[in-house]
Amino acid sequence: MSQNAVTPPPAPSYRRQGDLLLLSGQVGVDESWRPITETFHDEAGAAFRTVRRVLTEAGAEPRHILKVTAYLADLADFSAYNEVWTEQFPELRPARTTIGAQLFPPFRIELDVVAWLDAPASGQA
Amino acid sequence: MSQNAVTPPPAPSYRRQGDLLLLSGQVGVDESWRPITETFHDEAGAAFRTVRRVLTEAGAEPRHILKVTAYLADLADFSAYNEVWTEQFPELRPARTTIGAQLFPPFRIELDVVAWLDAPASGQA
Amino acid sequence: MSQNAVTPPPAPSYRRQGDLLLLSGQVGVDESWRPITETFHDEAGAAFRTVRRVLTEAGAEPRHILKVTAYLADLADFSAYNEVWTEQFPELRPARTTIGAQLFPPFRIELDVVAWLDAPASGQA
Repeated sequence: MSQNAVTPPPAPSYRRQGDLLLLSGQVGVDESWRPITETFHDEAGAAFRTVRRVLTEAGAEPRHILKVTAYLADLADFSAYNEVWTEQFPELRPARTTIGAQLFPPFRIELDVVAWLDAPASGQA
Repeated sequence: MSQNAVTPPPAPSYRRQGDLLLLSGQVGVDESWRPITETFHDEAGAAFRTVRRVLTEAGAEPRHILKVTAYLADLADFSAYNEVWTEQFPELRPARTTIGAQLFPPFRIELDVVAWLDAPASGQA
Repeated sequence: MSQNAVTPPPAPSYRRQGDLLLLSGQVGVDESWRPITETFHDEAGAAFRTVRRVLTEAGAEPRHILKVTAYLADLADFSAYNEVWTEQFPELRPARTTIGAQLFPPFRIELDVVAWLDAPASGQA
């Protein structure tokens, strides 16, 4: 059932400059770059887990996220995305933008994240 | 003639970190989240008014905008977008990117804004 | 064989705020805004040269780039994009995001760049 691993892009998963952290676009893969795409919900959860792994590498936490731009291959997944969003950010509230775009199969969601290492713990600043 | 209000997304309209201000994607709605989409020109004007409301909430002004990314549902609206742009920024000149993307109906334009609270009043810095 | 020049957008090619540099979306044109689109490889190379010209105007260099978002009109050009990427950044490694979007003909690639003027010379920070 498990899919073949995809090739990681020739770029780092993030760049940090001072407290500013810019992540590369992250998709729903496991730690071996195997896609997790059974349902949209699974995939979006996996994409956020990938974001968390990258934040950890960079010495950051989800509370440091300022903004999430989500690219969806199919806007019909928007309400499922909102469910996953609310699971991911029950209180912490990044700004966000969500648009439809063409993504590389088999992915239906890609996440672009901006974080700041000393961002306050919650709420809009 | 007026349309039903849309559901606001489960995210704040902006996040501020120090002087950096990242807005959530803004669309052409009035203060009650009713779409204003009679013409593209109306809608784009309303989207920029929404941006101004969010800037005001955050203690900022249009002169603080550094960058506007516009997502258009139909690239045929590009010249109308340029008209609205010139109305909005007769002198102040943010950097900008404009691409075509899939948007949630009934919207034809969505604006992504980065601002800096002590940005100079005009021109490219 | 050479194409007619396109109209430059009514916006500056960049905004700088302190050390933060946000470029407007850049495409594959020469210094007279004539499209260079014979092959995707030519065009992407020209788009990166445009980015370099803008960086130079702003007092920056490619090593200052933190993030590149590439919009491709056709995802079939992805592997060609990766070739150009590796030529452009044999060692320096910005973060990146690559998605498919609608672009203004004749362009097949548009680049969105974030730079920081005192970014370290290489590697992920």
